[in-house]
Amino acid sequence: MSKNTVGSLAELVGGQVQGDPALEITGVNDLRLAKSGEICFVRDQKYIELARKSGAGALLVHETLDVEAVQVVVKDVHAAFAKIALHFHPVPRAEEHFIHPSAEIDPAAVIDQPVQIGAMAVIEANVQIGAGTVIRSGCVLAEGSRLGTDCLLYPRVVLYAGVQLGNRVVVHAGSVIGSDGFGYASDEGRWLKLPQLGSVLIEDDVEIGANTTIDRATLGLTRIGPRSKLDNLIHVGHNCDFGADNAVAGFSAFSGSTIMGNRVNCAGHTVSAGHLKVADDVRIGGNSVIYGDVEEPGDYIGYPLQKKSRWGRTLHILNRLVEMQEKLRGLVRDKEESGKGKSE
Amino acid sequence: MSKNTVGSLAELVGGQVQGDPALEITGVNDLRLAKSGEICFVRDQKYIELARKSGAGALLVHETLDVEAVQVVVKDVHAAFAKIALHFHPVPRAEEHFIHPSAEIDPAAVIDQPVQIGAMAVIEANVQIGAGTVIRSGCVLAEGSRLGTDCLLYPRVVLYAGVQLGNRVVVHAGSVIGSDGFGYASDEGRWLKLPQLGSVLIEDDVEIGANTTIDRATLGLTRIGPRSKLDNLIHVGHNCDFGADNAVAGFSAFSGSTIMGNRVNCAGHTVSAGHLKVADDVRIGGNSVIYGDVEEPGDYIGYPLQKKSRWGRTLHILNRLVEMQEKLRGLVRDKEESGKGKSE
Amino acid sequence: MSKNTVGSLAELVGGQVQGDPALEITGVNDLRLAKSGEICFVRDQKYIELARKSGAGALLVHETLDVEAVQVVVKDVHAAFAKIALHFHPVPRAEEHFIHPSAEIDPAAVIDQPVQIGAMAVIEANVQIGAGTVIRSGCVLAEGSRLGTDCLLYPRVVLYAGVQLGNRVVVHAGSVIGSDGFGYASDEGRWLKLPQLGSVLIEDDVEIGANTTIDRATLGLTRIGPRSKLDNLIHVGHNCDFGADNAVAGFSAFSGSTIMGNRVNCAGHTVSAGHLKVADDVRIGGNSVIYGDVEEPGDYIGYPLQKKSRWGRTLHILNRLVEMQEKLRGLVRDKEESGKGKSE
Repeated sequence: MSKNTVGSLAELVGGQVQGDPALEITGVNDLRLAKSGEICFVRDQKYIELARKSGAGALLVHETLDVEAVQVVVKDVHAAFAKIALHFHPVPRAEEHFIHPSAEIDPAAVIDQPVQIGAMAVIEANVQIGAGTVIRSGCVLAEGSRLGTDCLLYPRVVLYAGVQLGNRVVVHAGSVIGSDGFGYASDEGRWLKLPQLGSVLIEDDVEIGANTTIDRATLGLTRIGPRSKLDNLIHVGHNCDFGADNAVAGFSAFSGSTIMGNRVNCAGHTVSAGHLKVADDVRIGGNSVIYGDVEEPGDYIGYPLQKKSRWGRTLHILNRLVEMQEKLRGLVRDKEESGKGKSE
Repeated sequence: MSKNTVGSLAELVGGQVQGDPALEITGVNDLRLAKSGEICFVRDQKYIELARKSGAGALLVHETLDVEAVQVVVKDVHAAFAKIALHFHPVPRAEEHFIHPSAEIDPAAVIDQPVQIGAMAVIEANVQIGAGTVIRSGCVLAEGSRLGTDCLLYPRVVLYAGVQLGNRVVVHAGSVIGSDGFGYASDEGRWLKLPQLGSVLIEDDVEIGANTTIDRATLGLTRIGPRSKLDNLIHVGHNCDFGADNAVAGFSAFSGSTIMGNRVNCAGHTVSAGHLKVADDVRIGGNSVIYGDVEEPGDYIGYPLQKKSRWGRTLHILNRLVEMQEKLRGLVRDKEESGKGKSE
Repeated sequence: MSKNTVGSLAELVGGQVQGDPALEITGVNDLRLAKSGEICFVRDQKYIELARKSGAGALLVHETLDVEAVQVVVKDVHAAFAKIALHFHPVPRAEEHFIHPSAEIDPAAVIDQPVQIGAMAVIEANVQIGAGTVIRSGCVLAEGSRLGTDCLLYPRVVLYAGVQLGNRVVVHAGSVIGSDGFGYASDEGRWLKLPQLGSVLIEDDVEIGANTTIDRATLGLTRIGPRSKLDNLIHVGHNCDFGADNAVAGFSAFSGSTIMGNRVNCAGHTVSAGHLKVADDVRIGGNSVIYGDVEEPGDYIGYPLQKKSRWGRTLHILNRLVEMQEKLRGLVRDKEESGKGKSE
């Protein structure tokens, strides 16, 4: 990597430099921890004291601040910081071809160059792996699974037979993609397995967290749309279909045939009852249960799911349910007493 | 597999053929995707238009429909479809004996023939594996674990020492069976581990999803009864005892010593507080919390768990708690005003 | 192990013997299952009939009971039982140095003696492993991860690069430590990854269950404090900081930057919204959602989180919400009728 300066980084993020553009920058950091060769971001004026005390050599700011450090003025400090952090710490890709001698590669696998395959990895017949892809130790890619270019699989990821990943897909350790959907028919009280004959398609630029499970479709495809991000310990049932640019935080679960639009956000511990549709641009707060279609964009939260503004009041009432009941009892008592009074 | 015809499949499911029984059938499919050599099911009259448009050569129906395709009339179309799908796509079993050369098999393991053991699998001392069983790549079977005949372990399943599986047990990738139960004694504010000395018994025909964990008992056995089905990301605590023919959908958790009867169904995201009993033939809806014994068969749901019919109303009220509070406030205000009126 | 007698075990736990201290004891068991050479505990007088029928040779009791067996009187029977059970079944540690020939050890790893490393384990460059540590089959320890002495990693644990474990840390199968935190910046509707540059510190004597995931910090450290115990299927987000002696039961999730004090207990299925603090000595009941700081020690439970005493009443009201609404409707109806009455 060639030398990075405030000027070159400002160019990267389309920012205006206030101060010396020739200052060399070697990395990113937090305002509290930064040293003179590092660049930080200042979210807003509230952080100005922290910014003044910071050892950072350069600051990403939304508007010029009254501080000594060199400043780069940008429209969106958070996005600019991510771009610069990614510049210093890009997602790993295979630059040189290397297959660990302990990896077990079926001769009928089709592997482009360069790729990196770690120790103890198992690549079965007819697997396809695109150039630039990194498969870490202990992954198992079952028969006929396909990966595009520049993917990154952390240790011990399992792809079931036929699962397909696009380009630049990242999957964290222990995740399982393509396991059977939970489908059984009741045959006079006994469960008959419904063979799960579909597959899973993970589209370009998706990132999936650790120990997440994505089931194959009964027939057809379970799909995670391009650029969507899923966190750890998420269960995606069979025939779910997620659109583009979704973000789902950890410890969430989507029953079969949950159909999500584009740019849907789910905070942690969101659960869907399945067989329902969520519109584009819906944002769902944490600990929500989606029971039915969500047809309008906007902010929702709760159990049952409500508009966000409304849920705040509902939660407040849940917190005061004891007092509410006492008031109600008081009214009922008054009424009974007044009733007695009348009958006397 | 010999040629399958509508007639041979009708015989398999005990159905009556309407049309040409000699029509060859090569697989199952969805009404929307089916081709002429495929058989589908029609759930009820609502799907008749789809059935008419379908390219399917044959249809499983509950009663004769006014369509062109050959029909097989059966009592239960869903069960019949599962039987035919399983006929075309049976659960894999080992037909020929094959142990991958990279697998690590302890000489003291007792392995019947034929079995299939995948790459990088680890089979420790005194493990027993019955004929027909398939162990996929990267599984670890710790000392003394025992598997019956015709089991199927997907990649990277871990069986702890001494865990016992019956016959035809299927375990999906990444699941862990026999990990220590969560047992500690408090010793003046510090946790002392209670060694978990029991084991786990998974009975015949159980299927377990991906990344599920089933803890060993403190003493005695954690048990999953015959033909029960567990989905992905389920936590089964120590000393749980599940009866026969249960079905538990994904992202559920059962604290220690949850005792479930037979034919218990739990929808997704069901949680049990543990040290409680659930009777036979109980069906629990999604997102429920089981806090105490469930003594009568029937349909339950909610938090707290209620009869299903009641929970629908409760959920409706939760949704309208804001209006309920407003009404209550109105009444309290009226009362206060009328009180003032009287005192004036 | 030398012969154990009631006397030697009483000495171990600081108890007083009633009866023959020379009686040999070979193990621990449950009152219902125990044989004459085994020791059990009797929680209180309620269990006296079970204790009388038990075949146990010796009993740990809080006060002398009217039974035939030899008794060891101790202050805390549960803690004493744990100490004796651990004496008979200590957590495994490496006594002799053994590295399985199939394990893949980078020459630049620094491995003390004795350690045990199982089959198919992968130890990358600059990993440090302290004496006495046991690494079971199929674990992957990525570059620069460090383990202290006497740790125990069950099969298929993954440590990401740079993760640090103290001494006597136990991690159950399938857990992942150090995966990327869920951090993205929105760049005009598209997600930009925020590289997760921090790490994870697991302090001495921590135990972690199966298939749990602990994310690395964005910058700095995600920390689990000394002697804390985490169960199965727990998600710990980036930059969480858990103090000492915590206990978190299974199927729980902590969003990023949850700061927990010391001696915090969380029952199963506890969820934290993140960016909040929980004080020392807080006990949180199952199925709770922590939405904000918990500043005072004590017992809490619920959604929204409440003092435990209050939540019992709230849950009771939730259970009777239908009747509550009916009463309210009755009052509203009365008022309307009386209003009509007046206007007539």
